Amino acid sequence: MQLTNEIIENDFIERLTAVLPRSPLQSNKLHESDAELIDLPGGRILAVTIDSIAEEIESGLYSDPYLIGWMLVTVNASDLAAVGAEPLGIMLSQTFSPDASSKFIEELQKGIRDACNAYRLYVMGGDTNFSGSMQMGGCAFGLIADNRPMTRIGCKPGDLLYSSGPLGLGSAYALSRLINKKGLGGAGIQYKPAARVREGLILRDIASCCMDTSDGAIATIDQLTRLNGVGAEIERPISEFMIAKAVEISRQARLPLWTLLAGPHGEFELIFTVSSEKIEILTDAFSNSDFKPLKLGKIDVEPGIRILSGNNMVSLPGAKIRNLWNESRGDAERYIAGLLEINKSISP
Amino acid sequence: MQLTNEIIENDFIERLTAVLPRSPLQSNKLHESDAELIDLPGGRILAVTIDSIAEEIESGLYSDPYLIGWMLVTVNASDLAAVGAEPLGIMLSQTFSPDASSKFIEELQKGIRDACNAYRLYVMGGDTNFSGSMQMGGCAFGLIADNRPMTRIGCKPGDLLYSSGPLGLGSAYALSRLINKKGLGGAGIQYKPAARVREGLILRDIASCCMDTSDGAIATIDQLTRLNGVGAEIERPISEFMIAKAVEISRQARLPLWTLLAGPHGEFELIFTVSSEKIEILTDAFSNSDFKPLKLGKIDVEPGIRILSGNNMVSLPGAKIRNLWNESRGDAERYIAGLLEINKSISP
Repeated sequence: MQLTNEIIENDFIERLTAVLPRSPLQSNKLHESDAELIDLPGGRILAVTIDSIAEEIESGLYSDPYLIGWMLVTVNASDLAAVGAEPLGIMLSQTFSPDASSKFIEELQKGIRDACNAYRLYVMGGDTNFSGSMQMGGCAFGLIADNRPMTRIGCKPGDLLYSSGPLGLGSAYALSRLINKKGLGGAGIQYKPAARVREGLILRDIASCCMDTSDGAIATIDQLTRLNGVGAEIERPISEFMIAKAVEISRQARLPLWTLLAGPHGEFELIFTVSSEKIEILTDAFSNSDFKPLKLGKIDVEPGIRILSGNNMVSLPGAKIRNLWNESRGDAERYIAGLLEINKSISP
Repeated sequence: MQLTNEIIENDFIERLTAVLPRSPLQSNKLHESDAELIDLPGGRILAVTIDSIAEEIESGLYSDPYLIGWMLVTVNASDLAAVGAEPLGIMLSQTFSPDASSKFIEELQKGIRDACNAYRLYVMGGDTNFSGSMQMGGCAFGLIADNRPMTRIGCKPGDLLYSSGPLGLGSAYALSRLINKKGLGGAGIQYKPAARVREGLILRDIASCCMDTSDGAIATIDQLTRLNGVGAEIERPISEFMIAKAVEISRQARLPLWTLLAGPHGEFELIFTVSSEKIEILTDAFSNSDFKPLKLGKIDVEPGIRILSGNNMVSLPGAKIRNLWNESRGDAERYIAGLLEINKSISP
């Protein structure tokens, strides 16, 4: 049995919510979907999510105000995408530094505006605060078109595992920002991920489960397998579904490819599963579109995540990988040393 | 003409939202209601609000974790009360200090739980972050029972002005916490205001406009008069509608009574107006209840706020009073000196 509370973050959330009663109107249980699903009196399902840009600012991962604004909307829109909701609006809670310049604020608001336009979301309201520590919070909501949301629950052994796009950009960008201060060329990485809102609306009828890679690809696949009591076989070579920039950075930094899927900073793709009967529907659904889902592997009855190493499948220790960032307490060098330590243990 | 953007906070909000298009589904304009009002496809009106406890923690105004939790829910529930919404749920965005103790977190969550129980709200979901600077954000939503929300717009000259309860506790508590470190006895003030959710549901059919005193009573009355192009005559002596503790503190601190209505930290009562034809309905509505609305005065055609000083009515400079906290940059002594300066100018 893989427990959700083996993961430090899951355990913390379970402790926080232990004393809080659950609404009878809420149809998802804890951890079971990227956005909360609420049966409104009157028959519609409201999807709601809340997410902040705080640690990313404090750690220096995001400093460009336009990017902060763009990401504030994107992280929330991505949760709506992962349940297949039609976006309606977003509420903002903006805590500014008292010395924030007009120019900074203007660029931030432009990032918010452009992301809202991209996802057909509207800023409906907000709250402003001033503090030494800048934080940007958002709470987005939308409706589920025919009351059948997509959730993290539902995949079965034999289902195929997909990503909505190439993976690894989140880790590659973080690596370039936080580590590659030594002239490894990583600073040139462009990071402006787009939430897969349109794709989510279509996948809702096709996928057996779905979750976004906001916390990185391995965390996503690990969480899905834990929640569904299954395992994942990533049979495809990582280089075939990893974004080129991440492959490049992994070589420059001499890191195994899989570690670029391990970082807790993601790229906001959707990881989803499709039962074998629905593969044709998936292909048809996107035949006239630019969007090409990437096959990663398949769902298996045996718990855990396995990846290809040479010609062998090797097991990744999901909990260890996911807990490593918490345990490294924000120290990126220590985190990477931990990943390399794990890499030794997984060689076949 | 009284402009909303004479007020620093209003002006800042107008600048923030200038580049953001407004949703065609949103029925309230900027500033016009305590919660945002959204016409959901399907015919229901969703009320949504977002509010954080950030400055209150940073300034030391709130330090007890139970109070922080209670207030996090209360500030949001109060906005739902002021539009007459039936509460449904609240989303939380909790940023903890990395060294927050289990005991601290437990007490915080108990405050959240108890406030949710008091308002029949449920925590539906959340987001957790860690940062040197603790901040607690909430986004609450509810439905408007028969699609007729209460807003800040609608009062007319001749309408009577009420408060849902005695005023001044917010300022009295802030004064006791931030200033009275000199043994003036203020530390004994209990502050645990309750959002007027039940009263709001009833007032929705009676009041011509409504707003909560989250930013203090004078800010509330000033905002309502600006938005409606009217003025307010507070004909009743302040001591008759001020909470006893605030009257006491004002004497100890040798501050004029009105200054205890001026502070930007409120008590979460509802300020509302009722047309003369509906006074009887108001009395009847609460005849079998403990709840007794307090009459403050009436709405007048002449802009501004006037209060009783001895036997004379004197004008309060609304914009000056409301901008003083911003201009004092968090320095409470300077703020109070500013209030006393204003007091000199208003004497008849």
